[in-house]
Amino acid sequence: MITQLEWLKEIDGHLWLVEDERENMKLSYRVKEVIHAEQSPFQHVMIVDTYDFGPTLVLDGVVQTTSRDGHIYNEMITHIPLLTHPHPKRVLIIGGGDCGAAREVCKYPQVEQIDMVEIDELVVKVSKQYLTDVSGNLSDPRVNFIYEDGTSFIKNRQETYDVVIVDSSDPIGPAEQLFSYEFYRDVHRALQTDGVMVCQSQSPIFHMNILKQTYERIGQLFPVVHVYQAVVPTYPGGLWSFTLGSKTYRPEQLDAKWDKQAKYVNQGILQGCFQLPESVRQALEK
Amino acid sequence: MITQLEWLKEIDGHLWLVEDERENMKLSYRVKEVIHAEQSPFQHVMIVDTYDFGPTLVLDGVVQTTSRDGHIYNEMITHIPLLTHPHPKRVLIIGGGDCGAAREVCKYPQVEQIDMVEIDELVVKVSKQYLTDVSGNLSDPRVNFIYEDGTSFIKNRQETYDVVIVDSSDPIGPAEQLFSYEFYRDVHRALQTDGVMVCQSQSPIFHMNILKQTYERIGQLFPVVHVYQAVVPTYPGGLWSFTLGSKTYRPEQLDAKWDKQAKYVNQGILQGCFQLPESVRQALEK
Repeated sequence: MITQLEWLKEIDGHLWLVEDERENMKLSYRVKEVIHAEQSPFQHVMIVDTYDFGPTLVLDGVVQTTSRDGHIYNEMITHIPLLTHPHPKRVLIIGGGDCGAAREVCKYPQVEQIDMVEIDELVVKVSKQYLTDVSGNLSDPRVNFIYEDGTSFIKNRQETYDVVIVDSSDPIGPAEQLFSYEFYRDVHRALQTDGVMVCQSQSPIFHMNILKQTYERIGQLFPVVHVYQAVVPTYPGGLWSFTLGSKTYRPEQLDAKWDKQAKYVNQGILQGCFQLPESVRQALEK
Repeated sequence: MITQLEWLKEIDGHLWLVEDERENMKLSYRVKEVIHAEQSPFQHVMIVDTYDFGPTLVLDGVVQTTSRDGHIYNEMITHIPLLTHPHPKRVLIIGGGDCGAAREVCKYPQVEQIDMVEIDELVVKVSKQYLTDVSGNLSDPRVNFIYEDGTSFIKNRQETYDVVIVDSSDPIGPAEQLFSYEFYRDVHRALQTDGVMVCQSQSPIFHMNILKQTYERIGQLFPVVHVYQAVVPTYPGGLWSFTLGSKTYRPEQLDAKWDKQAKYVNQGILQGCFQLPESVRQALEK
C-alpha cells in the first residue's frame, strides 16, 4: 500500500523517500519507517522517520519539516518579524501546521494572543503527535487553533494584528493563493497601523521569479520591505528566502535585542541574514 | 560502458547522476550528456552536462563544481584571505583543479605569482576545456601549473607565500592528507611571518567533526583563526564552511575594501559570512 506512493521507492532493499518536486534534481532520504500516512481532504500527509533527519513531515511527497533542521526555518520566520515590532501583542500565523512557528512565538511573554489558521487539521495532529522536536507538542493557552482557509479568514480582519506570519508550503496545491497580491493586500489590511508581516518566499536558486514577485508585491503595499535568508539543508538549493513587509518599523533596529534560547538564531545571524548573495541582490534590484 | 559506473543510472528512460557520497541522503541530477569520462591515476574524472547546473565536474562520483554554482565556493575561498592580507604578492593554491580559485586570485593586480599545485593534471585539462564558466579557460601568465602532490610540495617551502589556499576535495581519497595537523604545520612554515591561509572545512551539518578538528588544528598553529560560511546548493546540506588561519591580520579588517566584480561576494557577504548558526558556534566553542 505505502510503496504505491510514487515518492516512496524500494531501492536495493532499502526504503527511500524520493522528493516529488523537481524534474531535474532530486533529494532522496533513506527511510527507517513510515510512521503515519493518510490522505486528508487537502493533500497526502505523511510522517516518515529518516536516517539523517529523524521524523519528517512530508506533504504530497515534498519534505516540509524535519526533526533535525525544522528549527532553522521556524526560528527565522518568527524571530525576525517579532523583533522588528517593538511590542507585539496579537500575532496571526497562516499555515504553520507543524506548530514550530507558534512554538517560537510563545517565547515572547508580551504576546497575548496567537491565532494559528491552518487549513489542514491532520497536519497539526500528526505534527503534535510525531514531530515533537519541532512542535514541542504545543500546548500554550495563548495559541488558538483555527482550521480554516487562511485567505478566507483574513478577508474579514481589519487592524487586528501586530504581526502576521505567512508560513505556507510551496505555491502549488493548497498554498497557491497565499502568494497572490490580493492576499498580501488582505494581510496589510489585517495589520495594525504599525504592523509587520513576513512570508516564506522560496529558493533564490530555483524560484527567483517567485521571490522577485513576492518582493515586488509586498513592496507595493508596505513602505519597508526586506528579503532575508537562511540555510535549510532539506530545502532544494539549501538557501531559502523570507520577505518582510512593515508599515513603520525597520529590521535594522534589531540590534542588541536578542535574549532568547535558539539553535540557529543568534545576535550575528540577526544581522547576517540580511546579507544576500550579489546575484540575488542584483536580481531583486532590477 | 558509461552506465557501468555505479553513480550513473538510467531511471525511467533518463540518465541520472546519483551522488556516490552519502549512505542515507542522495542528491541526483538529471544528465543531458556525459561530456568526458576517464580514469586518471588518482580518481575517476568526469564532466557531465546536467539540466539544472550545466557542465559539472564529478570526481569518483561526487559533484565538485558546477557551471551554475561553482563561482560561490571559488569566490569565497579566494577573496576572504586575499582581502585579509593587505598586500598579497605570492599566492599558493593547493588543489583547485577546476581553476576557479586561481581565476579569482587573478583579479588582484598586486599579486605577482600564483603557484597552483594540483595532483591530477586531468582535472585541470577537462576543467579548462569543458568547464569554462568556472575556469575561464585560465591563461593568466602569473599562474604556474605544478602537477604534484601538495603535501610533498609544501614540505620544502619556508616563508615563501603571503597567502596559501587549500582547495581540496573531501577528506577521503587523494585529499585525506590535506586535513592533517602535519600538513597545516607545513603550510604555516611556508607562509611569510604575516601570512594567511584558508582551507575548505566541509559541511557544518554533516561533518561537524571535521570542521571542529580543522578549527582546532589551525587554531593551535595560528594566533588568528576564524570559520566562515557560504551556501553552495550542490554540496550536501547547502551550508559549507571555510577555516582561515592568520599570523597577524584579522578578517574583521575586511570592511570597505570590496572593489571586484563577483556573482556571490559583495560588501555585505564579507561581513555576513562570519555569522554562524548558533548550534555551529556552540559546537566550535566547546
